[in-house]
Parts: sequence; C-alpha cells; structure tokens
Amino acid sequence: MQELGSFRNKIRDLTFKILELIHERNNVALNIAELKQRHGLNIENEEIEIKLEDDVVSFCEEKGINEELALKVLHSLLEESKRLQGYTKQSVVTPMTVASRAMSLASAAKNVIRLDIGEPDFPPPNSVVEECSRAMKERKTHYTDSRGIPQLREALQQYLMTKYKFSCNKENLLITPGGRFAIFAAFSSIVKEGQSVLLIEPNWPAYKENLEFAGIRPIVIKTSIEDNWDVDLEKIKESIRKTTRAIVISYPSNPTGKIIRREDFKAILEIARDYNLYVVSDEIYNEYAYADCPSILQYDVGKFILTSSFSKTWAMTGFRIGYAVSDKDVISKMQKVLSLIVTCVPEFIQYGAIKALQAEEEVRRNTSIMKRRIELAYNEIRKIDSLITYKPDGGMYLFPVSNREDFDSSRFASELLEKRFVAVSPGCGFGDYPRAFRISLGQNEEKIIQGIRTISEMLG
Amino acid sequence: MQELGSFRNKIRDLTFKILELIHERNNVALNIAELKQRHGLNIENEEIEIKLEDDVVSFCEEKGINEELALKVLHSLLEESKRLQGYTKQSVVTPMTVASRAMSLASAAKNVIRLDIGEPDFPPPNSVVEECSRAMKERKTHYTDSRGIPQLREALQQYLMTKYKFSCNKENLLITPGGRFAIFAAFSSIVKEGQSVLLIEPNWPAYKENLEFAGIRPIVIKTSIEDNWDVDLEKIKESIRKTTRAIVISYPSNPTGKIIRREDFKAILEIARDYNLYVVSDEIYNEYAYADCPSILQYDVGKFILTSSFSKTWAMTGFRIGYAVSDKDVISKMQKVLSLIVTCVPEFIQYGAIKALQAEEEVRRNTSIMKRRIELAYNEIRKIDSLITYKPDGGMYLFPVSNREDFDSSRFASELLEKRFVAVSPGCGFGDYPRAFRISLGQNEEKIIQGIRTISEMLG
Repeated sequence: MQELGSFRNKIRDLTFKILELIHERNNVALNIAELKQRHGLNIENEEIEIKLEDDVVSFCEEKGINEELALKVLHSLLEESKRLQGYTKQSVVTPMTVASRAMSLASAAKNVIRLDIGEPDFPPPNSVVEECSRAMKERKTHYTDSRGIPQLREALQQYLMTKYKFSCNKENLLITPGGRFAIFAAFSSIVKEGQSVLLIEPNWPAYKENLEFAGIRPIVIKTSIEDNWDVDLEKIKESIRKTTRAIVISYPSNPTGKIIRREDFKAILEIARDYNLYVVSDEIYNEYAYADCPSILQYDVGKFILTSSFSKTWAMTGFRIGYAVSDKDVISKMQKVLSLIVTCVPEFIQYGAIKALQAEEEVRRNTSIMKRRIELAYNEIRKIDSLITYKPDGGMYLFPVSNREDFDSSRFASELLEKRFVAVSPGCGFGDYPRAFRISLGQNEEKIIQGIRTISEMLG
Repeated sequence: MQELGSFRNKIRDLTFKILELIHERNNVALNIAELKQRHGLNIENEEIEIKLEDDVVSFCEEKGINEELALKVLHSLLEESKRLQGYTKQSVVTPMTVASRAMSLASAAKNVIRLDIGEPDFPPPNSVVEECSRAMKERKTHYTDSRGIPQLREALQQYLMTKYKFSCNKENLLITPGGRFAIFAAFSSIVKEGQSVLLIEPNWPAYKENLEFAGIRPIVIKTSIEDNWDVDLEKIKESIRKTTRAIVISYPSNPTGKIIRREDFKAILEIARDYNLYVVSDEIYNEYAYADCPSILQYDVGKFILTSSFSKTWAMTGFRIGYAVSDKDVISKMQKVLSLIVTCVPEFIQYGAIKALQAEEEVRRNTSIMKRRIELAYNEIRKIDSLITYKPDGGMYLFPVSNREDFDSSRFASELLEKRFVAVSPGCGFGDYPRAFRISLGQNEEKIIQGIRTISEMLG
C-alpha cells in the first residue's frame, strides 16, 4: 500500500499549499486595507465580490470543480478579507435598539406609545384559547410528528383550498414555531453558504439576518417611494448571478403596505422559473389586504416555498406558530431541520391553530379594524408636510419618508422616544432608508393618532 | 490608484490558484477512492483527518493564519473528499426508523407497546395546565423578551438557589423552546465549523446530529458495560485535540442510567479547565436520580453551559420549554440565535413553567414512580440470560447489551416491532453499540413488564 501512502502525502502537501496561498491572499488583503486607509477610501467592495463569485462559478464549470465547495471556500476567504480590513458594521440606532429602549422605558413606568413592534393589540380568537386549554387538559401535551399533527395539516389543506383553490397533500405542509422559523428552515433547505438570494427592499429585517447567519449573500433590489415602491423587473433580471438560488417576495409589504400588481407578481415568477430560482413568498399579511393581492398558490409557475404564520391575522404572536408550503422534497428537508432543533410545535397549540383556521368572524373583524386604522393613520400622516407616505394597499404599517435631504430617521426615532415617549422603527432596519421610518398600526386608534400628532410636533 | 488595481488582481489570481489546488486535491482524493475500491479497503480515515486538523492548527500558529478560517476550509475539503470517495452513511435500522414505523403501526390500530420514545406517560402538573390556561385567557399571548419573561427567569434563579445553592443573575439564564434548542444554540455559540467537541458515548443522538449539522467534528470517547459505563479520564485527556472547544456530559445518562462518581465529575471539569474547554452539561434527567448526582452548578471550575428542560421531570414534552445557564456572554450569543430563529417561547407557556418549578409534590411523585419502574424493569430484564444490563442509578431507561457476539440490535428491534409489536431503540442510535438496545420506562408498569417478557421470548 505504498501507493496509498504517497497519495495521502500528496493530499497533505496540497492542503498546506492551499493554506500557504490563503495566507498570501490574506496578506494582500492587508495591503489593500493599508492603501485604503492611506487614501481614505471606503472599504466595501460588494460589486467586486459578486463579480468574483460569478467568475468562480464559471471556472468551476470549466474545470469540473464542485461549485458548492468553491463558493463556500470563497465566502470564507471574502469574510476573512473583510475581517482583516477591519470591516465592521456601522453602529446606528436600529429597530432593535429602539425596541429594547422602549421596553425599558415602559418598564420604568413611562407611558410609551409603542408604534414600533409589529404586533396587533387584538385578542386571539376565543375559540383558539378555549381549544388550547381543552387540548392541554385532555393531555395533548406530547411530542408530535415534527411536520405537525395530521389534523392541523388537514385543516390547513382545506383552508388553502377554500381560500386559493390550491390543492396539495399533507406532505407539502410543515407546521413551524412561527414564520421566522419557516424562513430559517426555508433558506437552510434550498441555499448553501456562499450562494446568493435576491431581496426586494425595504423589507422585513429577518430575511437578511437569516441569510447572513447562514453565510448566504443577500443581493438587494431597492425600490423607492418615488416609484410607488414598484419593483423594476429589469433590475431583478440584472441582479441574478450565477450563485443565485432564490428570490424573496412579501406582499402586502412590511414596511410599506405595498401590494404588487398581479402582472408584476406573475412576471417575477416567470423570471424565477426561467433562471431556475426558488420563489420564497412570505404571505404573513395576506389577510390584511385591501386591494387585490396575489398569492403564490394561485400560480403554477416554478419552484416555490410559501411561508406564513398565525401571528398577525389571528393575533397569535405569543403562540409561536406558522407554516410552510412547498414541494415534498423541500418540506422534508425543512422538517429535518425543525426536528433537529425544536422537535415539534407544542401539541395543544397545534390544536388551537385548527380553530384559528375556522375563525372567520374574528378574521373579518381584525381585517376591518386594520383597514380603518390604515385610513385613519394615513389621513393623519399626510397632514405632515415634510413626509411623503404611500397609502398602504394592505399590511399593518405606514412607512413615511422625509423629503428633507438630511433627515436622519435613526436620530429622529431616538429623540422621539427619549423626549416624547413614542417609539417608531428607523428605516435602516428595512434596508438603506435613512430618511424613512415605520409606524406600526398594532395599537388602538387613539394611540396611533396621538403618536402621529407627536411625530408632527417633533418635525415642527 | 493603480496600486489598488494591482493588489486586486493579485487577490483574484490567488483565489483561482487556490481553486486550482483544491481541484488537484480532489483529483488525488479520487485516486485514493479508486485504489481503495480496487483493494476493498474501508473508506473512512478519521484518525488521519484528526491528525491533519491538528497539524493545520500548528501550521496556523506558526504562520499567523487565522485558525478558524483554516479549519473551516479544511472541513470543507475533507467533506468534499468524502463525497468524492462515495462515502455514505450505512443504512441501518435507527431509533428514528423504529419510531416512525411504530407510529405507523400504532395508527394502523396495532397495539404497539412503545418502549422506544423517551417520553413519560405522567400528566403534567395540574397547576401548570391551569396557569397556562389562565395566562392565555389573560392575554399573555404576546412576544416576550427573547431571553424569557423576567418572572420565569427569577423563579428559575430561586429554583437553582434552593436546589444547588447556585447563585446567578437573570442575565445568566435563557428560556429555550426545549432542551434540543438549548443544545443547538450552545454549540452555535461556542464552537465553529471545523473545530471539535468531545462526546462520551453511548449518549443522546441529538448531540452528534447537532454537531454534524454545524460542521463540527464529534470526537467520541466510548464507554462500555464491562467498565460499568465509567469514563476513562486518561482517554478524555488523550482525545483532546488542538481543535477541541468543548466536552458534553450528561448524567443520569440517556441511555445507560449511569450516574458519574463525584470525583470523576470533578476531574472532568478540571481537565476541561486545564485545556480551556467549555463543559456542556445536559442535566435533563437530574430529578430522576437515585444515587448522589453531581450538577455542574455545584462546582466553580471553568467555563460551562448547563442545558435542561421541563420535558422529563414535569412530563411537559409537548410544551417545548427548556433552559440554559451560562456566563453572560454565551447567554447573549445564544439569545441572538434564539431571537433570530424563533423570536421567543410562547408567553403563556412560560407562565406555566413558573408553576412547574413550584410543583414539588408532582416531582416527588414522578420521581418515585420512575424509581419503582427502574427496580421492576431491572429485576425483569436481569432474568434474561443473554443480556447484561447495568442497574440504572437514575434516568428513565435501561440499556441491555447482548452477550452474543453476533447480536444485531437493529435487526432485533425491527423484528420485535414487526412480529411482536414492541418498540425499542437499537443501540446504533446512541453510538457504536450494535449489541445493545434502549428500553424507555416512559410507559406504565404493566406495559414495561409485558414488553420485557416479549423481549425475553424473542431472545429465546
């Protein structure tokens, strides 16, 4: 077995040669850092990185190298370069700092108006509470199938059929501990480290956070209030790289309240199909829609994962239950992750969720309350001259943008909270929107009006 | 800025050179695969890999290369070699296949005795069920601090003080959706891809599964029934590599029921401290202890994470709630992971858990029931000549080992289930124990006895 020994030595030598080159590469990165510092240059090179990733994929195709391996190694190298160049995220006031400061002010007995958190003040349906209690008392307090109890998945099948005429098997459904987990499991099932995912900003911070946690590059397509938050389809096409595996969409939008036109929605699905991307459609706000709102389940175009949750429609944030719909293989991968990390969703809560799916009256009530709040809040905020606000088609937020060039919403949110005890979320949490902030309509009308009037006063 | 351009070209060139070498390395791996196939050799090289990892760390120290980066790249390369060599896990009957087959048999109206799942058949304390219901009705149905509600963390402080005279701050505690999540978050907070963690086998499969999910190498220290499941301290020391960041211990043991001697426990903590390792002590079965059982909280030796759960002691499996205790920094990292993936544990369940901590009577009852089951089951199983069984010091399992050299517990478990409708977990799920199987004492005495008698009949 001399041959084996000699092959093994070769493997060993090559391993160290690879590390030598990595070392050399890091040293060049340090040279660049020094140069940049000397000339006061900005440190990020996202474009260069993305180009390099594309070229690496081409190189792999040409040479027959496993692309996943190459992209993962490249990602590690790029991260190291950033680390060596002293790249750190700018520290600004984020929605999280506002939220935690608001919480501590509130617990210090200050009367804080919480227009920051995306949580409706409605009660959950009585039938859900009753059913959870009943199920708990009847000893539905055991481990369940990690995909969710069959009864809930059947009820969900029925619900999706009634609502969208969408027909699927139980194997296409996964019950998750909240919409967040569905997003996390979705990404970990369809995208690998070093690959990329398209995001349309502004959007819910959790997408980017989850991608970054997994070492996946978010490729951002910005939209703007000047374009009515419409997404430019050409920009989507241009943004797709060889590394891209999915695009995330979510309408009604958090934070803008925008609902995409059906023709644009369909066009995105077609682009995704043409480029073999998964569409991750987060439809958590789908009941709070006051204009025609497309669902991915109404289209038979390509690969998709729908994520949703009982949190908003049924005001069940504190129950931590959501779901995902996808093809059998993806659901099975997502199930493995769920089973590994949390085993399953609490059994009695799953029973409660069955009742939620039948709670039509409460959904109607919540939906109409939210509609009134949007009208009211929009009419109030439009009185403020320095803000431009899109009138939401749905969702539960306003996302006003200041027309003052130098407006800094992080500072504004911070002052508004410290001086006037009103909490809003600065725009930086939702993308590159320093002049915008998000107002949540989770509070009652009185608080919303009072909050917006305080904002008006602060803005002078 | 010609200089910048030239540095960038250099980075680019080096990147492709690195990939060229990776390609070359992969080709050598293919050569090895071919050679091995030709000579019918076994494919795994764990020892060689571990040696290479160690050498890579030395190399990094010498050259000043970031060790984390190097180990991550090395891990990716090793995985690729395995993939190219067609390495796949042996497909055997695992505890999971038994469990899912048992579930489907059971739902086909077969009267299956489930001695496989680690779930007590006791009811959760009434006070917990009542409190969850009350809290739900009083609208404790909102997002909470991702670390857990302060009231529960205070109650836990008090509980740990009473039970172990352990004093800590609320910042040292994290409420998690089950013990599994605590393990997952623990690893992701203290170990990186390509590094390693020591495991003492046989043990709960979730440790290894979680490590593998994160690309962390499990280094296994085997124990055997011949040594009364005692762990060899010298073996622990010898197993520690330069890549090792933590050791996992869990007593009373799942599956053996072993409780470690205090002197050995302390010795492990001291070894860990000397080598700067974290001790992850999973104390989920700590109430089911019928001999003196050490807790990590009773020792002030080095870095640790305690993980635990309300599942076993309080029979709250289906509530999905557990906790972790550690230093402030680790808890804060674990909190970030929790907040990213699941936001928080359902609010009303956290209120219920407060009552669990006060349910002394139920704990005493459950503990004494489990003790009786252990006695009874042990007395029954020892009648079987071909099995050697350690008499459990605690926990809720028996882990008999066949004295027949050729006994295959996977096949046995499968036959036992298919022919006699008794489910047990084959030993391969808990490590390299093909002659052992686990009997869970989660069922009532009658079923346990009936199950063990059926086993006896099957074994002839």
